[in-house]
Amino acid sequence: MIILGIDPGLRTTGFGVIQKHGSKLRYIASGTIKSGEGDLPTRLKVILDGVGEVARTYGPDCAAIEQVFVNVNPQSTLLLGQARGAAICALVSAELSVAEYSPTQIKQAVVGTGRAVKAQMQDMVARLLQLPGLPGTDAADALGIAICHAHSRETLTLIAGGTNPAATGPLAGMRVRRGRLVG
Amino acid sequence: MIILGIDPGLRTTGFGVIQKHGSKLRYIASGTIKSGEGDLPTRLKVILDGVGEVARTYGPDCAAIEQVFVNVNPQSTLLLGQARGAAICALVSAELSVAEYSPTQIKQAVVGTGRAVKAQMQDMVARLLQLPGLPGTDAADALGIAICHAHSRETLTLIAGGTNPAATGPLAGMRVRRGRLVG
Repeated sequence: MIILGIDPGLRTTGFGVIQKHGSKLRYIASGTIKSGEGDLPTRLKVILDGVGEVARTYGPDCAAIEQVFVNVNPQSTLLLGQARGAAICALVSAELSVAEYSPTQIKQAVVGTGRAVKAQMQDMVARLLQLPGLPGTDAADALGIAICHAHSRETLTLIAGGTNPAATGPLAGMRVRRGRLVG
Repeated sequence: MIILGIDPGLRTTGFGVIQKHGSKLRYIASGTIKSGEGDLPTRLKVILDGVGEVARTYGPDCAAIEQVFVNVNPQSTLLLGQARGAAICALVSAELSVAEYSPTQIKQAVVGTGRAVKAQMQDMVARLLQLPGLPGTDAADALGIAICHAHSRETLTLIAGGTNPAATGPLAGMRVRRGRLVG
């Protein structure tokens, strides 16, 4: 199963593509879509076309996108909402199911704590996908979203009932203690 | 020239199509797209597909959309932003230029005052387009956006320099006084 993760933003939209084969995760691709300096409709079109091209290129089976939260600046919230709407439109146009995860859920699933910082996300994404180096922060977030989706059932089981004997992925044998995944 | 006006919303997106022939405006169509009760990606797809179908059906030459403002509820602002993003994506996918007008600009252009209420907008839209009855509020707003775009140059000239001898549309010979168009 190929999973496309999207980290939405008006300036920069991150994407990450991974393959889940049984319990194994494999890195396929990641990168960013820059919307440039045009007016709003032009920038939304760049996001729509860019995410659409990623979907056509890598043929994912499903997609996941980060839930965004309201900014201190309401105007920024509105702009981010429109950018996220454009990314979701590209995904549904490609007939992909779209799962949504909160930043806390993603950090919890990838790093083991909902309060992880960006460097921890980059580091854990690189470890889980056996990357030769650290991905950029936007790409790391998008890959993290894809990883979260890949492990969503395992994670839910872990959080609900401690260890999950069935889990054989990177989270196998880990438990949640005080909101952290522990070995 | 055929103009498509869009009044964006997550639950209900209004659309209005008019034809500008010289100084004359003619009503072509109007209506609403209801996004239903599905999850967010599903509802955004309804808006994307619905606005796209309107564009294919009526073949407009250009489009205009209302600028939305931040709501008291930031979560509503975020949802409205995503709905507006979906509508704009449909328009740019149909290769339409997309103009943006504030609610005040639209009311000013159609009713003559930036503080018009919905009933005044419905009434003036019906008069300007010689409709046999009052359009619904969402459709009236969308038709008002299209009318605003049709008269945007005349309106700007009026506001800048009083009467506009060149204007021969419904606003011909009118001037702005204390923010109102007067005969």
